[in-house]
Amino acid sequence: MRYAYLGPQGTFTEAALRTIPGAAEAEHVPLSTVPAVLDALRSDKVDGAVVALENSVEGSVPTTLDELATGDQLQIVAEIHIPVSFALLVRPGTSFGDIKTVSSHPIAQPQCRRWLAEHVPDAEWRAATSNAEAAQHVADGHYDAALAGSFAAARYGLDVLAEDIHDVADAVTRFIELRRPCAPPPPTGMDRTTVVAFIGEDHPGALLEILNEFSMRGINLTLIQSRPTGAGLGSYLFWMDFEGHVQDARVGEALMGLRRVVADVRYLGSYARADQVRPEIRRGTHDTDFTEAAAWLTSIRSGHA
Amino acid sequence: MRYAYLGPQGTFTEAALRTIPGAAEAEHVPLSTVPAVLDALRSDKVDGAVVALENSVEGSVPTTLDELATGDQLQIVAEIHIPVSFALLVRPGTSFGDIKTVSSHPIAQPQCRRWLAEHVPDAEWRAATSNAEAAQHVADGHYDAALAGSFAAARYGLDVLAEDIHDVADAVTRFIELRRPCAPPPPTGMDRTTVVAFIGEDHPGALLEILNEFSMRGINLTLIQSRPTGAGLGSYLFWMDFEGHVQDARVGEALMGLRRVVADVRYLGSYARADQVRPEIRRGTHDTDFTEAAAWLTSIRSGHA
Amino acid sequence: MRYAYLGPQGTFTEAALRTIPGAAEAEHVPLSTVPAVLDALRSDKVDGAVVALENSVEGSVPTTLDELATGDQLQIVAEIHIPVSFALLVRPGTSFGDIKTVSSHPIAQPQCRRWLAEHVPDAEWRAATSNAEAAQHVADGHYDAALAGSFAAARYGLDVLAEDIHDVADAVTRFIELRRPCAPPPPTGMDRTTVVAFIGEDHPGALLEILNEFSMRGINLTLIQSRPTGAGLGSYLFWMDFEGHVQDARVGEALMGLRRVVADVRYLGSYARADQVRPEIRRGTHDTDFTEAAAWLTSIRSGHA
Amino acid sequence: MRYAYLGPQGTFTEAALRTIPGAAEAEHVPLSTVPAVLDALRSDKVDGAVVALENSVEGSVPTTLDELATGDQLQIVAEIHIPVSFALLVRPGTSFGDIKTVSSHPIAQPQCRRWLAEHVPDAEWRAATSNAEAAQHVADGHYDAALAGSFAAARYGLDVLAEDIHDVADAVTRFIELRRPCAPPPPTGMDRTTVVAFIGEDHPGALLEILNEFSMRGINLTLIQSRPTGAGLGSYLFWMDFEGHVQDARVGEALMGLRRVVADVRYLGSYARADQVRPEIRRGTHDTDFTEAAAWLTSIRSGHA
Repeated sequence: MRYAYLGPQGTFTEAALRTIPGAAEAEHVPLSTVPAVLDALRSDKVDGAVVALENSVEGSVPTTLDELATGDQLQIVAEIHIPVSFALLVRPGTSFGDIKTVSSHPIAQPQCRRWLAEHVPDAEWRAATSNAEAAQHVADGHYDAALAGSFAAARYGLDVLAEDIHDVADAVTRFIELRRPCAPPPPTGMDRTTVVAFIGEDHPGALLEILNEFSMRGINLTLIQSRPTGAGLGSYLFWMDFEGHVQDARVGEALMGLRRVVADVRYLGSYARADQVRPEIRRGTHDTDFTEAAAWLTSIRSGHA
Repeated sequence: MRYAYLGPQGTFTEAALRTIPGAAEAEHVPLSTVPAVLDALRSDKVDGAVVALENSVEGSVPTTLDELATGDQLQIVAEIHIPVSFALLVRPGTSFGDIKTVSSHPIAQPQCRRWLAEHVPDAEWRAATSNAEAAQHVADGHYDAALAGSFAAARYGLDVLAEDIHDVADAVTRFIELRRPCAPPPPTGMDRTTVVAFIGEDHPGALLEILNEFSMRGINLTLIQSRPTGAGLGSYLFWMDFEGHVQDARVGEALMGLRRVVADVRYLGSYARADQVRPEIRRGTHDTDFTEAAAWLTSIRSGHA
Repeated sequence: MRYAYLGPQGTFTEAALRTIPGAAEAEHVPLSTVPAVLDALRSDKVDGAVVALENSVEGSVPTTLDELATGDQLQIVAEIHIPVSFALLVRPGTSFGDIKTVSSHPIAQPQCRRWLAEHVPDAEWRAATSNAEAAQHVADGHYDAALAGSFAAARYGLDVLAEDIHDVADAVTRFIELRRPCAPPPPTGMDRTTVVAFIGEDHPGALLEILNEFSMRGINLTLIQSRPTGAGLGSYLFWMDFEGHVQDARVGEALMGLRRVVADVRYLGSYARADQVRPEIRRGTHDTDFTEAAAWLTSIRSGHA
Repeated sequence: MRYAYLGPQGTFTEAALRTIPGAAEAEHVPLSTVPAVLDALRSDKVDGAVVALENSVEGSVPTTLDELATGDQLQIVAEIHIPVSFALLVRPGTSFGDIKTVSSHPIAQPQCRRWLAEHVPDAEWRAATSNAEAAQHVADGHYDAALAGSFAAARYGLDVLAEDIHDVADAVTRFIELRRPCAPPPPTGMDRTTVVAFIGEDHPGALLEILNEFSMRGINLTLIQSRPTGAGLGSYLFWMDFEGHVQDARVGEALMGLRRVVADVRYLGSYARADQVRPEIRRGTHDTDFTEAAAWLTSIRSGHA
C-alpha cells in the first residue's frame, strides 16, 4: 500500500496520514502540491492519498476543493480531524528578542495572528510553500523562526521556542483520505457524504432548489462552499458536505433530486464522521418509510391497492 | 354492465352518464343519494357509477368528496364536463307573472340567483332533494316553477318557460366515472390524478410540505379543497387534483413523498382530462430524467461511477 | 341595536346571536337567506349580523364564504362556537315506529346520518330550507319528524323524541358576528384574522407563495378553503383564517406580502378566538423584532450605523 | 484625500485604485497586508481604501472577507473590475530555457497553471507575499521569473518575456473601494448590495430561510460565500452580494427579514455595479407595490378600508 500526501515530511498532513489504520506498514510518498498528490492517485502511482480539506479557522482549502471538483473522479473514504496547534521553531540559541522574521505556509499565519502580534510584535511574516519549507529556511538562516508542527523540529535541527500556538481554542483541521472510485465503506449511522453541484447557465434560484432537496428530507448540511467555476464572475459550483450515507434512502433520493435539478453533480464519497455525531432522522425519512412508500406506489399503479 | 347514478331520471348526472362510451347498451340504476350510489358500487351491485364532483360556480360537491375520502376505496377512471345551463319548467299555461315559488336542488339556486332576481324577483325559492324532484313538485302543484335540465320537461309533463339559464358564462359541472380499485387507464399525456391527503395531529406546516412535493417536481394542482375530517375544528383532509398520471415518474415520486409526509394518503385514480390540456413538463422532470438519475445512483452506490 | 340573522326563529343561528353581550336588549331580525342577512347590514337596515361560517363536520358554509368574499365589504368582529347537537321533533303521540320521513336543512342530515340509520333506518330524508321550516312541516303534517334544536319544539308545538343527536362527538358550529367596515376590536393575544385571497390569471404556484408569506413569519393557518370565483374551473379564491391580529407586526407584514403577491386580497377582520388558544410566537417575529429591524434599516440607509 | 491599498507599488490593486475618479490627485499609501489597509482606514489615517474582494478564477479573497466581517464596520462605496492578465517578468537576457523558478503571490499561480505547464514545464513555483515582491526577488537574483502586472516591469528593472497570461478567458478581479460608515451613494438602478449574515447556534435550516427572504422578493444573489467564524467546524458566516440598493423597498424588506432571522447581520454597502447589469424586477416588488401595500395596511388597521 502506497500513500501520497502533501509534503515535505513533517507537515500536519503527514501527521494525519499516520492516524490511518495500517499506515505504519504503508509507504508514504510526500509530494509538493495538492495537484501532484491527486495526480499520483489518478495515474495509479499510489493507492491512496491524504490532503487537507477544511480548517475551522480559515475555512476550506480552495485548491483541494477545485482539484477534486474537476479532473478524473476520486473518492473520499475517510476523514481525519487534527487539532490546530503550532510550535515556533528556531535555531538553537534564538530568543524572542532575536526574531525579526517568521515564516510559514500562508494558511498558518492567520491562525496565529494574535499570538504573533503579542509575542513577536515587530517580526515580519514571510510566505513559504509549506510549514516544513519554512523550517528549512530557518535552518538555512534565511528566516529567524517558523510556525510548524512541533514534530518537525527534530527533522530540521531546530528548537521549539513555544508550543500549542493558536488564536482560537478547539480549532481543527479536517483531512480526507482518498481512493480511486470504489464502493463506499459501509454505513455506520454516523456518516457524512460529499458532493459537488455545478450550476449551469443563469439559474439564480438553483441554490434554493438544491437546499430544498436536502431540507425536505430532513438532511442537514455540514459544509457549503461556493467556488467559481472559472467561467466568469457569477458562475459557481457548490461543494456540499451533509449528514448521512449514499446507502441511506433519504440520501439516495436527495442525490437523485439534485442530479435532475443541476447542470451536473459529482459524488465524492460517503464515510464515517470523525466527530461521531449521530444525525436526528426526521419522521417519514427512515429507510423503511421509503420502502413502504415505494411498495404502495407499486400497488396503486397495478390496481391492487 | 350496470351503472349507478344520482337520480332520479332526468338529472344532469344522467346526462353525464349518457356520454360514456358504451353507456347506451348499459343498464342505468338511479339512486337517491350519493352514498347510496357509492355503496351500490362498493357492494358489487353495479359495475360503475357516475356522480358530480365539482361545479365551476359552486365549487366541489362536499358529499362526494367526503364519501370518496372515507369508506372502502373506489377509483376514478374518467371525468366528464357538462355545461351548466338550466331551464325553467312550469305547468302548461303558467306565465312569469304567475310564479310565486321556484324550486330546485340547493346547488342550482346560487347558479341562477341573478337571473331569478331579474326575471322572477318576487318568487320565493324552495329546496328540493333534486332538480327532478323539484319538477315533480311542480307537476303536483306544490310549487310553480322548477330549475332543471330541459330534458326533464317531457318526463314530468311540464313546459320550458325559459332556457339556457345561468349567471356565469362557460360554467361547467365536472362528473366522475367510478370503478372498484383497478389498474388505471393508460396515460394519454393529458391526464389528471386525484388523491386525498390526511393531516394527522397538529401539523400546521403540513400543507406547505405537501405543496412543495408537487411544486419541486413541476406538477401543477388543478383543484385543492380542504374538508374537515370530523375530528374537531382544525383537523382537515385535502382533496387534490393535479396534472399527470400515476405512471409518470414525476407523479410517482411526488406521491411517494406525500405518502411519507402526511398521516395518510388515498389514491383515487389517474384519468384523461376532459379539457385535454397538455401540461408543460419542467426541465429535469421527464421520465428519462428520473431513469437517468436512478441509474447514476446505482452506479455510485456500487463504486462503478 | 338591530341584528339580522338567518331565521326563522328557533335556528341555531338565533341561539348563537343570543350569546352576544347586549343581545338581550337588541332587536333580532330573522331573514330567510344568508344574502338577505348580509344585504340588510350592507344597506344600513341593521347594525350587526350573525351567520354560520364553519361546521366541524360539514366544513365551511359555501354561501357565507362566497357572499362575504364579494359585494360591499363587511367585517368580522367576533366568533361564536355552538356545540352541534340536534333533537328529533315529532307531533305529540308519534313513536319511532311511526316515522316514515325526516326533514331538516341539508347541512343537518349528514351530521346525523349514522344516528338516523340506526334509529329510523326506514325513514326517508326530505330537504327543508331551514331546520325551523322542517319543524313547521312536521307541525303541518307533511313530514313525520324534524331534526332541529330542542329549543324549537315549544315554538312549533312539537315533542322532543330524542335529544343530543350527533354522529361525531365534540362537533361545533362556528358563527361570526359582522359589522360594516370598522376599526378591529383591540388585540387580546388570542386572536384570529380572516382574509380572502384571489388568484388572478394562471398562477399555479400562487398558493405556495401565499402559504410562504405566513410560514416564514411563524403564522399558523387555522382554516384554508378554496372556492371557485365563477370564472371557470381552475380559477379560485382562498378563504384563510390564521392566528394573530392585524395590529400584530408579523400579521401586518404577512398581509402586505400577500397584497403584493396575489391579484387581490380582502381583509375580513381580526377578532378574539372563541377557543382562547394562545399562539406560540416564533423567535424573530415579536413586535419588538420588527421594530428593531426597522430602526436598523433606517440607520444603515442614513449612514449612522 | 488619502487612499490606502495593498502594496507594494506595482500591484493590480494599485491599478484598480488608479481608475477611481479623482485618484490622480489623491495620495496613495501602499501597505503590506489587507488588515493593515483596513486598520489605516478604521483609525482615520486615510480617507479611503482599495482591496481585492473576488477573482473569477480563484474565488473570494478570504482575508478581505474575514477582515470586513469583523472589527469596526467599514462600507463599500464602489466596485472596480480589472481583467486578469499577467506578464512573465525576467532579468534582461533571460530566455524560457533559463527559467528554473517562477515566483508569485499564491493567488496568481493557479490562474496561470496551464500556461506555466506548457511554457516552462520544468520550472518550480515559489510563493511570494505579493507579485511585486516576486519581481523584487527576480531582480535580486533569488528567482528566475515572476508573474506580475506588466506595469511592474519598469519599476524593478525587468523585461517582459510574455504578456496576457491567463488560463481562463475573460477572468476578472473585483476590487472594492471602502470608506468609514456613511450614507450609501444614490441608487443607479444597476446596484449591488453586500451583507454578512452570522448563523448563531445550531440552526441548520438558516441558510434556506435566508435565501427565502431574497427569493420571495425576486432578488437574485450574485455571490454567496460561506466562511467559518472561528468557533469550530460547522459555525459559519455567509457573505452575500445581491442585486439592488438598500434604498429599494424590496431590498429594505429583505434586509429587515434577514435581521430578524439570523443571529446577526452586518451591512457592508450598496453601490453601482461595475458590469452595469440592470436587474429584472419581479411583479409585486416595485417600490410602488410596497408603498401601496403599506397604505392598504394602514387603512384596514384604522377601519377606513
